[in-house]
Amino acid sequence: MQLLHLDSSVLGAASASRRLSAEIVARQLALLPDLAVTYRDLAADPPLHLSAAHMAARMGEVIEDATLNEDLVKGNAYLDELLAADIVVIGAPMYNFSIPTPLKAWIDRIAVAGKTFSYTAGGPEGLLKNKKAFIASARGSSYPANGPSAAFDHQESYLTGLLAFLGMTDVTIVRAEGLAIGPEAKDAALARASEDIAALTAWGQVSTNQRI
Amino acid sequence: MQLLHLDSSVLGAASASRRLSAEIVARQLALLPDLAVTYRDLAADPPLHLSAAHMAARMGEVIEDATLNEDLVKGNAYLDELLAADIVVIGAPMYNFSIPTPLKAWIDRIAVAGKTFSYTAGGPEGLLKNKKAFIASARGSSYPANGPSAAFDHQESYLTGLLAFLGMTDVTIVRAEGLAIGPEAKDAALARASEDIAALTAWGQVSTNQRI
Repeated sequence: MQLLHLDSSVLGAASASRRLSAEIVARQLALLPDLAVTYRDLAADPPLHLSAAHMAARMGEVIEDATLNEDLVKGNAYLDELLAADIVVIGAPMYNFSIPTPLKAWIDRIAVAGKTFSYTAGGPEGLLKNKKAFIASARGSSYPANGPSAAFDHQESYLTGLLAFLGMTDVTIVRAEGLAIGPEAKDAALARASEDIAALTAWGQVSTNQRI
Repeated sequence: MQLLHLDSSVLGAASASRRLSAEIVARQLALLPDLAVTYRDLAADPPLHLSAAHMAARMGEVIEDATLNEDLVKGNAYLDELLAADIVVIGAPMYNFSIPTPLKAWIDRIAVAGKTFSYTAGGPEGLLKNKKAFIASARGSSYPANGPSAAFDHQESYLTGLLAFLGMTDVTIVRAEGLAIGPEAKDAALARASEDIAALTAWGQVSTNQRI
């Protein structure tokens, strides 16, 4: 089985989402020792912003720019890695209510009609079936599902919507939030998230209410 | 008075959001002939992804990388331009249910505590008062406010939420949607949006239900 592990935080060793995504991967490896892990650090090695030149390349234009060519190869690799993965672990902090731009740029490479979704008479249909996703979510504030701040969440809600669009409906969010409140709140949130991860069973059955 | 005009579509002359944002600016110039316009094409000249190096620079680290230094200067200019603007016109297509990454990267430069919002005892408070925003929204499908697809909209809903967080609650959305349905639907949507723009009065009073 294949696991694709993505990180996107700019905070390096101080990152909560990196800590949680690494713990999720370690837990999956403990549960499924034959997992092969592919790792992409989208912050350290980001894709370019999607550009007019990318669109021209998709339309068949010959590319002579080495940087763009390298980026196109990288984008194709992102897609192959996702298609090959059984489990996807996404380290995703909230930045300004949304996700980091390199992670969005990754999405702009893997959301490809005919590969990860298709247009049908009944509307678009996701093609990524039988895959499991984990989102390692970190954010400074809290966004309770039915509270007034929930409408500001374009991080978890965006990722789960996008994944569902692609057919990935089996998503577990491991969340550490309220991290900006202070060191104690942060430590407590991370400890709770670590407990959630330790309670994960094979293929992501989780014994807490984190399962969505 | 100052108007800040942003575009972010990768489609160049074929872009609906660029056409609409240009029409909005032309209309504002007709209404307010003394407007000074600053233009940023975020697709043609994008900021870098926010990175660990940016965070280090914010913490006072000396920057020796010329590309990063140039990007930091650009980011500061974004902030100055926004602070100086009375009217902001944002050309914003939906890409994969969200906004283009260069526009999100622009947001990552202008959402600065102490400049565009502040932390108070009662929670965060937006500092951008008495500014008017227009969003030139273009998207392939439709996302009716109370329909099942509304939850997938992380473009208009994200931008309006972010602007509100910064204190900009006077936002008019000019929208052309369903553009992927076909050429006739696209032409009709653009024509309706142009009518909405032609009906704009000074400082964005609009006679249609586009006002939110």
